Amino acid sequence: MGLEAGGDSDRMSGNGQRMARTGQRAPRASGPSPHLYAVILAGGSGTRFWPLSRHLYPKQLLRIIGEETLIQQTMRRVLGCVPAERVLVSTTPAQADSIRYQLGEWKDALRENFVIEPEGRNTAPAIALAAGELITRDPEAVMLVLPADHVIQGSQRFQAAVALGVQLAGQGRLITFGIPPSRPETGYGYIQPNRGKALMRQRGLAGYPVARFVEKPDAKTAARYLKDGHYYWNSGIFLWRAATILEELARHQPGLARAMRSIGAALQAGASDEFSRLYRRLKPVSIDQGVMERSHRAAVIPVDFTWSDVGNWRSLEEVAARDKAGNVVSGKVVDLDSHDSILYADRRLVATIGLSDMVVVDTPDATLVCPKNRSQEVKAVVDMLRQRGAPEHLEHRTVFRPWGSYTVLEEGSGYKVKRVSVNPGGRLSLQLHHQRSEHWVVIAGTARVTCGRRVFELTVGQSTGIPKETPHRLENPGSGHLHLIEVQNGPYLGEDDIVRFHDDYGRSLKR
Amino acid sequence: MGLEAGGDSDRMSGNGQRMARTGQRAPRASGPSPHLYAVILAGGSGTRFWPLSRHLYPKQLLRIIGEETLIQQTMRRVLGCVPAERVLVSTTPAQADSIRYQLGEWKDALRENFVIEPEGRNTAPAIALAAGELITRDPEAVMLVLPADHVIQGSQRFQAAVALGVQLAGQGRLITFGIPPSRPETGYGYIQPNRGKALMRQRGLAGYPVARFVEKPDAKTAARYLKDGHYYWNSGIFLWRAATILEELARHQPGLARAMRSIGAALQAGASDEFSRLYRRLKPVSIDQGVMERSHRAAVIPVDFTWSDVGNWRSLEEVAARDKAGNVVSGKVVDLDSHDSILYADRRLVATIGLSDMVVVDTPDATLVCPKNRSQEVKAVVDMLRQRGAPEHLEHRTVFRPWGSYTVLEEGSGYKVKRVSVNPGGRLSLQLHHQRSEHWVVIAGTARVTCGRRVFELTVGQSTGIPKETPHRLENPGSGHLHLIEVQNGPYLGEDDIVRFHDDYGRSLKR
Repeated sequence: MGLEAGGDSDRMSGNGQRMARTGQRAPRASGPSPHLYAVILAGGSGTRFWPLSRHLYPKQLLRIIGEETLIQQTMRRVLGCVPAERVLVSTTPAQADSIRYQLGEWKDALRENFVIEPEGRNTAPAIALAAGELITRDPEAVMLVLPADHVIQGSQRFQAAVALGVQLAGQGRLITFGIPPSRPETGYGYIQPNRGKALMRQRGLAGYPVARFVEKPDAKTAARYLKDGHYYWNSGIFLWRAATILEELARHQPGLARAMRSIGAALQAGASDEFSRLYRRLKPVSIDQGVMERSHRAAVIPVDFTWSDVGNWRSLEEVAARDKAGNVVSGKVVDLDSHDSILYADRRLVATIGLSDMVVVDTPDATLVCPKNRSQEVKAVVDMLRQRGAPEHLEHRTVFRPWGSYTVLEEGSGYKVKRVSVNPGGRLSLQLHHQRSEHWVVIAGTARVTCGRRVFELTVGQSTGIPKETPHRLENPGSGHLHLIEVQNGPYLGEDDIVRFHDDYGRSLKR
Repeated sequence: MGLEAGGDSDRMSGNGQRMARTGQRAPRASGPSPHLYAVILAGGSGTRFWPLSRHLYPKQLLRIIGEETLIQQTMRRVLGCVPAERVLVSTTPAQADSIRYQLGEWKDALRENFVIEPEGRNTAPAIALAAGELITRDPEAVMLVLPADHVIQGSQRFQAAVALGVQLAGQGRLITFGIPPSRPETGYGYIQPNRGKALMRQRGLAGYPVARFVEKPDAKTAARYLKDGHYYWNSGIFLWRAATILEELARHQPGLARAMRSIGAALQAGASDEFSRLYRRLKPVSIDQGVMERSHRAAVIPVDFTWSDVGNWRSLEEVAARDKAGNVVSGKVVDLDSHDSILYADRRLVATIGLSDMVVVDTPDATLVCPKNRSQEVKAVVDMLRQRGAPEHLEHRTVFRPWGSYTVLEEGSGYKVKRVSVNPGGRLSLQLHHQRSEHWVVIAGTARVTCGRRVFELTVGQSTGIPKETPHRLENPGSGHLHLIEVQNGPYLGEDDIVRFHDDYGRSLKR
């Protein structure tokens, strides 16, 4: 069965090539501006919401608040400004499968719209790569750039701010959106507008030139900014013409701009290994420090929507509903008399008694318990786990693939048990394993199985065995989901014991 | 596969019959007294250590401290006084399998020594049943009665106390062992000795007539008792001649004594249904309230071993080792800076940061988090779960059977996945299921499978399917453990969908 590790560079650069080839597609004239595009930055790694987030399953993929995950909410948010065809998703190979899975509703529109960095290099290179792609598609492209993992409430006010931003971007400005501070936060950068020189006013909003950016201040300074009322949090949401940001990158980050030209050339030539090699050599730099803080074209629009970057467990309280006792509760929790706590369970039962100001987070393979005011220290726990090589920092027991997902139910000496779910029409690669046999028992749906030269179907309650060294393939020919239990036997059960002969999703056939 | 529910009364009364038939076995003349027997009371239910304990998996079966479970430690403790053949285990049908499994080391010696109550009726009926059995085996029998789930440290002092107790029991006394109080505990009964009238002194110990028993006192009274120095906690450990306790039961609980005569007659006649019916009608009464507090023959030996009834999570601190920060830690815990907390994990990872005086207990299907000083309220949580019909109050995901054990890995609509472990030589009943098919994949050892008329063996990596309505049997013919993954499919997957044709363990063949 296909247990494809998510890190092969061929896949990602394959996407890059496809993007380059389809670059001349004409933008549709819909939405507030026919040249407006959204770029969702979805490359973040995930330690601060551990154990719910993992290195390979960061915050953007989580259902933090509401019925949808943060990236799904972000997608819906930008659809208020642009059609799905004009949304680019910037991410890394390790996360692309999970994101494609979560954005499956817009699968067709997004098919060629993934901008995949071989490896994260902070925001400036990711934005440069996306800007290069957009300007090829549309020389007039205006980019709304936003992280995939923020919570924003008030979509109409968000759209109003974007509409004003589009106007200012048209004048060659680099727009940032400023959040009125609600507390003396020392974890954010601040922006001071030049309030005497409003650039434009529209629908109760105004844009100003940036007087200055301030890096994370100390507590005293933060308190002063809060009192002053004329400082804003830097939300990390931006808007500009692709041409403008490329100009400013060339001016303030000439080395990066030069490297990006070589990288673009490698992409257009289909030289995916070269693309990867060059990109990995880029120096990580943020767009804030690399461009915004240096450019005289920076402008800020103070906004009036509710925003949170939900940077740690505690910040949930800013955005999630609380019960009468002030608890944020999710999942299978039985509580007796707790208050002001964050209680996150999943399908396992969590029982709490008399907690105050605590965080309890339970996942299938790891549980976190700490006082709310120490929840930011979860990063130290993740570091300890990483140093020990513990799998719990890296990924969840459920892993998403382009064809569906699998969940490890148990592993032990010489065996592994998984529940495998294949989407309707999904098909794993034609593959073989050198060191393991596999047994499949269908528990829902219909499986079409290729085993050696035989092709046959299995329905609920039927099973088959795949000997090692035997080419095989699993497919869901039905219109509902296929679920089966897989039992692997063998001396080595790593995901990299796989030889692929054919794959529907462009994944590497080399091993 | 055999998924035998543990509550059928036939099984238990079958044991009772066997005991009655072998009643005349002569005691071996070893140990301090050739007439001394130990009766381990192992019928307790398990809410106070939830989620580690369950209704069907109470505290005595837990590894609370050290390498062995409490009942294993209790068994070893009494072996310092009597040989294994003279140990009786008093329990209920629901727990007998788990106890036999844990006491497997003494399987042969204990084979006929389980005294199984059809249903718990507190200690007086259980003791009456055991005393009746013992007096049939040996009219001179002396009984050491002790709960299976206490922690005692200091085995030589324990043996010394028993040796003195045997002397006093020979004089017709009902001996109780008194624990010098270490705190003003309001949860125990207290005993006041008549210190002016020592009955006997030996090896630094003395026995006294009981001046009076005191029910659980209020805090002020408990503080006075502690200060007074002449009050002792009632440990619930007793010693007496079987004849003496039967006399005193007849005197102080004549109704119970009468009923026990009918019950004994039913047992001897092999009328197991009648035995069950009569026993279930007994009024629950404790030996303390029913006899000890009323009898003028009661005596107390203040002891000098360390004792704890580990009545709740907090009491662990009395007996378990603590780390430098005062934490009691067990299992896969990653901690940062916690102190004075009880952190119990199993194979899942538990990460804790900055906890003080907390209890965190993690099990495969449930987690408890509460402040130490509220850990006794876990009972309320268990009650809530029981009212909701939640399985987490009842049993663990791993269930023990006479042939081995099984662990539920996952269950969902129409399917269930188990890991099944069969002891060397173990054999499940010949059985069939009306509503489910089963698939077995061997992951360790060798399975001998009967499926319809075929008998065949499977080794690691081999599998087979058992259609519904097909008589089948699973057996481990090897000398090592057999492990296999079982996938069940069907509309109904309850353990009671089973028709048994033959069983090695005397379990009911009727359904």
